[in-house]
Amino acid sequence: MIHLAKDTIVALATAHGSAAIAVIRLSGPSALSIAGSCFYDKNLKRKEVSAFKSHSIHFGVLANEGQILDEVLLSVFKAPHSYTGEDSVEVSCHGSMFIQQQILQLFLMAGARMAEPGEFTLRAFLNGKMDLSQAEAVADLIASNSPVSHQVAMQQMRGGFSSSIKVLREQLLNFASLIELELDFSEEDVEFANRGELKTLVSSIQKLLFKLLQSFELGNVIKNGLPVAIVGKPNAGKSTLLNVLLEDERAIVSEIPGTTRDTIEDSMVIGGVLFRFIDTAGLRSTDDVIESIGVNRALEAMRKSSIVIYLFDVHTLSSGDLKLELEKLRSHIGDSQLLPVGNKLDVEDQKELSAEFADIKDILFISAKNHTNIDALKNRLIELFDARTVNSGETVVTNARHANALRNAHMALEKVKQGLEQQVASDFLALDIRYALEELGQITGQVSNEDLLDNIFSKFCIGK
Amino acid sequence: MIHLAKDTIVALATAHGSAAIAVIRLSGPSALSIAGSCFYDKNLKRKEVSAFKSHSIHFGVLANEGQILDEVLLSVFKAPHSYTGEDSVEVSCHGSMFIQQQILQLFLMAGARMAEPGEFTLRAFLNGKMDLSQAEAVADLIASNSPVSHQVAMQQMRGGFSSSIKVLREQLLNFASLIELELDFSEEDVEFANRGELKTLVSSIQKLLFKLLQSFELGNVIKNGLPVAIVGKPNAGKSTLLNVLLEDERAIVSEIPGTTRDTIEDSMVIGGVLFRFIDTAGLRSTDDVIESIGVNRALEAMRKSSIVIYLFDVHTLSSGDLKLELEKLRSHIGDSQLLPVGNKLDVEDQKELSAEFADIKDILFISAKNHTNIDALKNRLIELFDARTVNSGETVVTNARHANALRNAHMALEKVKQGLEQQVASDFLALDIRYALEELGQITGQVSNEDLLDNIFSKFCIGK
Repeated sequence: MIHLAKDTIVALATAHGSAAIAVIRLSGPSALSIAGSCFYDKNLKRKEVSAFKSHSIHFGVLANEGQILDEVLLSVFKAPHSYTGEDSVEVSCHGSMFIQQQILQLFLMAGARMAEPGEFTLRAFLNGKMDLSQAEAVADLIASNSPVSHQVAMQQMRGGFSSSIKVLREQLLNFASLIELELDFSEEDVEFANRGELKTLVSSIQKLLFKLLQSFELGNVIKNGLPVAIVGKPNAGKSTLLNVLLEDERAIVSEIPGTTRDTIEDSMVIGGVLFRFIDTAGLRSTDDVIESIGVNRALEAMRKSSIVIYLFDVHTLSSGDLKLELEKLRSHIGDSQLLPVGNKLDVEDQKELSAEFADIKDILFISAKNHTNIDALKNRLIELFDARTVNSGETVVTNARHANALRNAHMALEKVKQGLEQQVASDFLALDIRYALEELGQITGQVSNEDLLDNIFSKFCIGK
Repeated sequence: MIHLAKDTIVALATAHGSAAIAVIRLSGPSALSIAGSCFYDKNLKRKEVSAFKSHSIHFGVLANEGQILDEVLLSVFKAPHSYTGEDSVEVSCHGSMFIQQQILQLFLMAGARMAEPGEFTLRAFLNGKMDLSQAEAVADLIASNSPVSHQVAMQQMRGGFSSSIKVLREQLLNFASLIELELDFSEEDVEFANRGELKTLVSSIQKLLFKLLQSFELGNVIKNGLPVAIVGKPNAGKSTLLNVLLEDERAIVSEIPGTTRDTIEDSMVIGGVLFRFIDTAGLRSTDDVIESIGVNRALEAMRKSSIVIYLFDVHTLSSGDLKLELEKLRSHIGDSQLLPVGNKLDVEDQKELSAEFADIKDILFISAKNHTNIDALKNRLIELFDARTVNSGETVVTNARHANALRNAHMALEKVKQGLEQQVASDFLALDIRYALEELGQITGQVSNEDLLDNIFSKFCIGK
């Protein structure tokens, strides 16, 4: 539900737990007076919080009927110069859970209301401090767990994505206005909007939309991890490899509470990129890898993966057999990159092996057990990711809601194009252009409704 | 080890985890320049942090070689007007674990050093912002998990305990000076310090020390919970009662990470007081409760408890038998309060039971299973705690180190008293008075050494 900021909200803004300090955030028309009602100097003389300058910090105590709760620092932000655009107060208190709860209670009793998830950012959006895609990027930023996902969220929060969309929308809007002008003069059969130019514009916008839509695949990978399947016959060393790959780096991922998903135990950040390893350990033990997979979940996992590592024991597979296996695999994995990796390498054999498998492209030899060439494998994975990456600075769509709106806008423009070819009346063209405009507007929130906002902000953490 | 603030320290000050915001703290002579080296406005123009006023807040971005890490709020505190007394900067960033780590890295690369546990507060002590017992109270405050422990820690942090000690110490110091003056005139055999007055003073200081020492038992209870043993024959319903008592309130305790001890599953806050229930479920099943306990750990638990609940089944014990049991118990539990509680009450029997057990003082009837009269039992527990409490506002010693110093000071003064009676020479008196002064000075840190400080501050959390 949208609260149009008639009331004042409060929440713990820092992580749950005991620590040196915690920060409690108040925002709304009564933020200053609520904080002021319980803020005193060291000798319990009332301090006039409303008189404090914006962006200033004040030492004092919070007290309830003469009983001191804590010595705190109080930061004051006055509307519109705050995160939410409203009067806001941040209290930096001692990080005891008990004190945190007491201060929240104090502010609730003084007239504040517990904030709903994302409500501070919702208010920032409603007050025009950021558009909707920027607000969504705030949540992505907090959840980001790799340098690349962090960078994409940061770019979106700083308005990179919004400005791409806004440019497209403005161009369309010009044409929409001209065509709607024609409607006013419909009896005179004039054409203010040059149909040829409109056609060119629609095509070029569609091209851009298509490019953005394509980036969603990458965006999804950045946000959720690049899926990598490790397949191979039993005893090829898949589990050992998985453990070796995960071992040293997994702490980076597992330290982040709240982001844990079912597959988290198989994720890791390598070279700034989140990789999500998919377990295919459930392969049946027959001689033919492909047959053993059949239509089971391992095949499914491979299809969903961007990279398929085919791991084999260098001592048990000839170059010819390997070629056959890889050919069979290729017919099953669609667009995924296939990476043949020979395991159980004895270092002294490397030359010999390179000669034997000389005609297999991009083959790598490792020893998972002895950690030989693991860095080379990691580098190869990063290269394969880079090959999929658009240049940095280009906009990447990471949000399914945005992708959906882009897709709908693209379809509406397709109708416009058809309409132009069939020379339909201006009013039909105008309708489809309006629809495309609306879809694009939903991304930035120029067009929005309660359900949409509810849906977006309910996924935030409380206090943001 | 004491670092005399030649370097600048940095640490995460808020709780570990993902949240709306996190705060990173810098303190030391280079705090402003380190923060300034990576703080820019939105368009990546360098901002001059050193020029910012103390207690002001600034919006901007932290960036590393043109790459933006986060949009942050930067709070500036200039020496001596900061927590540590040094130049300090607090960065309020988006609460992603990734961003927190990146910003820490950024400041480390710019010349800061990771803070050791308690190092911010150590610097506050070394810079005279607080005395040692106040610094210790900061850690107690953060760990406090009940209204009473919070109140005692708050009083100590605000200097209540320190000022009691300082008054005692000053009075002694006066006499020490006079007696030491006598040493300068030792050949003339004068007495500047009136021996009668000194004797009176020593006695009155001893009385105060004794009172403070006595309060340590209470202080310990406040800090670690009032120990309550539940004893009784098998099937009296001890486990049921324990579960009923813990059930509704234990969340308050278990929500506090880092305070978990081995006995936490048996602790709870009732009426603002932390009670620590001690499990005596291991009683052997013989007819004689006391015999079954023998010298085993249940007896040990009872001796350590402030309150012993004797739980019995009202349907299986006569008033006479109960009296015998209670007498036997009393001989084993020393000063502990004994609380007879009849379990398995049927409400309709209450009058009858009251009549039957009319001569048993303070008896309560409950039904643990049906939750009957549980509130009455809780109120009784709080009453028994209150009876032990000194008046609020009085100083309570909660720290074993302080108790030890008080005990040593008390012993030194005992020697002074004996010396006065035996009319020993001034130089011997002076020695013992100096020793007492030193012990008292260690409490507030007027007398301190590296080992002592190391020992105290290493128990703090990092970031405080």
